[in-house]
Amino acid sequence: MPTITSVDVIDVRFPTSATLDGSDAMNPDGDYSAAYVVLGTDGHTDGDLDGDLSGHGLTFTIGRGNDLCVAAARQIGARLAGRDVDEVAGDLGGLYREIMSDSQLRWLGPEKGVVHLSAAAVLNAAWDLAARRAGKPLWRLIADMSPEELVAACDFSYLSDVLTPLDAVEMLARLAPTRQARIAVLAESGYPAYTTSAGWLGYPDDKLRRLCREAVAEGWTHVKLKVGANLDDDLRRLAIAREEIGDRALMIDANQVWDVPRAIEWVNRLAPFQPLWIEEPTSPDDVLGHAAIRKAVAPVGVATGEHCHNRVMFKQLLQAGAIDYCQIDSCRLASVNEIVPVLLMAAKFGVPVCPHAGGVGLCELVQHMSIVDYVCVSGKLEGRVLEYVDHLHEHFTDPVRIRDGRYLLPERPGYGARMHADSIAAYRYPDGSAWAR
Amino acid sequence: MPTITSVDVIDVRFPTSATLDGSDAMNPDGDYSAAYVVLGTDGHTDGDLDGDLSGHGLTFTIGRGNDLCVAAARQIGARLAGRDVDEVAGDLGGLYREIMSDSQLRWLGPEKGVVHLSAAAVLNAAWDLAARRAGKPLWRLIADMSPEELVAACDFSYLSDVLTPLDAVEMLARLAPTRQARIAVLAESGYPAYTTSAGWLGYPDDKLRRLCREAVAEGWTHVKLKVGANLDDDLRRLAIAREEIGDRALMIDANQVWDVPRAIEWVNRLAPFQPLWIEEPTSPDDVLGHAAIRKAVAPVGVATGEHCHNRVMFKQLLQAGAIDYCQIDSCRLASVNEIVPVLLMAAKFGVPVCPHAGGVGLCELVQHMSIVDYVCVSGKLEGRVLEYVDHLHEHFTDPVRIRDGRYLLPERPGYGARMHADSIAAYRYPDGSAWAR
Repeated sequence: MPTITSVDVIDVRFPTSATLDGSDAMNPDGDYSAAYVVLGTDGHTDGDLDGDLSGHGLTFTIGRGNDLCVAAARQIGARLAGRDVDEVAGDLGGLYREIMSDSQLRWLGPEKGVVHLSAAAVLNAAWDLAARRAGKPLWRLIADMSPEELVAACDFSYLSDVLTPLDAVEMLARLAPTRQARIAVLAESGYPAYTTSAGWLGYPDDKLRRLCREAVAEGWTHVKLKVGANLDDDLRRLAIAREEIGDRALMIDANQVWDVPRAIEWVNRLAPFQPLWIEEPTSPDDVLGHAAIRKAVAPVGVATGEHCHNRVMFKQLLQAGAIDYCQIDSCRLASVNEIVPVLLMAAKFGVPVCPHAGGVGLCELVQHMSIVDYVCVSGKLEGRVLEYVDHLHEHFTDPVRIRDGRYLLPERPGYGARMHADSIAAYRYPDGSAWAR
Repeated sequence: MPTITSVDVIDVRFPTSATLDGSDAMNPDGDYSAAYVVLGTDGHTDGDLDGDLSGHGLTFTIGRGNDLCVAAARQIGARLAGRDVDEVAGDLGGLYREIMSDSQLRWLGPEKGVVHLSAAAVLNAAWDLAARRAGKPLWRLIADMSPEELVAACDFSYLSDVLTPLDAVEMLARLAPTRQARIAVLAESGYPAYTTSAGWLGYPDDKLRRLCREAVAEGWTHVKLKVGANLDDDLRRLAIAREEIGDRALMIDANQVWDVPRAIEWVNRLAPFQPLWIEEPTSPDDVLGHAAIRKAVAPVGVATGEHCHNRVMFKQLLQAGAIDYCQIDSCRLASVNEIVPVLLMAAKFGVPVCPHAGGVGLCELVQHMSIVDYVCVSGKLEGRVLEYVDHLHEHFTDPVRIRDGRYLLPERPGYGARMHADSIAAYRYPDGSAWAR
């Protein structure tokens, strides 16, 4: 009976602002960061790095304030110290409900902001621990759960006007008999993806052109560009991208810089370049605004979700017909417990889930959720593409593997967020060697 | 030219969970707390407590996590140290925009949760400083601003589909010539209010009955009760309240415990007691849910807002026809800069603003916003009632003054959140004398 013997939360930051990697119209100079949670145990496991059983999770931030998430994750995680690993892994729904029902911390959101991001970090570590204990990648741990078990782990509160737990069991049960066939498809061909690495706003034109050309050569069928700072720049940059990528799919991302009328005007000016979607055209809170924009810019699709702070907001985006693409994030929503209900609602409304990734470890984490969507929830790949950004993967013990513009199926145990000890030591803030310089 | 010489943020907590004051269906055991900001200066002022010019603001929490707001407010407030007081007071819109445009901290919301609450604390202190510098209560500082000056201090971003700055100037200008007449009305009769002190969920029936009877004797015309934990209890408690208060207005507050179908069912069971409104029937994020509930429980009104995290959410509550009463909070929204645009939108939609108060210092702060609503924005008192809770006022240097169920017009300089030094020393967490015991 292994026990959780330590709960450590570490402030890890990468000085990405120096290179303008990750620059966009709203966030010109982020330092990609993680509030990184390690659940240490006295247990052992075959097949993991050092034979020690542990759980690793994180939430993603862009620098200042990462310390606030570290402090919140310490408070939230403290309750795990001394717990029996089998009990925690056996009732991840109970752990979620326990964390969410701390009414004093809840007041600071509720279910949003620093506290919710930090709950995601702790719960991501708990799911990782459960997967490592079982010796399975997270997606397989979930694919091996019965519909009833998975639903019991999820949060359906405030969702019953759209989806009840009973509806969810029915939806999952319908696809359960054919899960293995879809796993075989992914093992064969991987999961479809797109790249954002070419199109950061701070890159000069020649770098943009070169990166688009490289993306085509690498087999990418979908490319995304940042827009929204200057209309003339956008027109010129989209022309360059179209020249290079031909009739491949082109997506654009405004990172929330517009109000509703301006979004409509600007996107319609860019429409001749036939973008597949406009991402985050306005405030992530503005469900009705997204619905108005979607109506006015069709056939350009509307995508949002990386800052959509909880399942209740996703419920409304779907109810209002506000989105064509549902962009869940593994660290903004409170882990698997909250993400699976969003996958279910999106499937019910027929909206494809195309997760947000990039940042620190988001690709490593969220690939599991796209796989769960295909294998267990929607059963579809049509219209789905999973974001890929070529940043910081070298710091992870099990980095994502990309081939011909597709994610390969993860095979190693866990949820994927474990970082190398050397990387943590170097980028720990403010005393790691990368910051001490 | 006085200068801001210090920015202190103090963790102040009151052990209110011991008495069940403030208990409701979602928050059974809050310890009412404040992340309390003091802007010290080397200036002097006539008419303030000690002759020293300073600014005092806070955000309100219910215990655990107050330290997170303290840490965030320290980061946000640090930029004020060394600034010229006249420059800060002369451009509070600029200060707001500077604070909100820190894109790294913004990521942690955006505009919600710990970071936004803490921005409110710092900005509340800056507005308090400006009012003390001018020797005026905050409401009068604002009533003495031209429509253009007030609009320049406000945040209209993401609102232009409902309200532009130009619309706002027009609305304010229409009422500007008659401001003095409305001030005279308030000086004569005070601002209408209601009491929540009788109806906390943890109080036994005989205490509820006694407090209702006292409320009537004190001149209250509106009384609010907490509901939502147990339907039979609610039916019994509402019967007691109705017996005692007769045909005075009775409001009920569920503090977010229901999903949409359950809210409709439960409120319709309580409808025979003719509540004026049901407050927070479901998740504060659920704009469309509130709209559905409002349709199904009329003529019972729907009220929400104390957890409505920013102006974009209020915009949607109004656009969707989701609320009959708009319950702004002085610490959840980012101070005057964000509250005034909400007052303007509510006036445009014809929805009365009935602020949330109680907590620690919320009555002291938000009374100024109701006065600004009447004097500058809506020009109306009809349908407006300002919450009053008889808690913790003794810790403030300028506590609210209530007579015959109405707030008297504040006369002393500032925004009202200044606490006695003795109170701060006693309730500072964890080392104050009240906690050391």
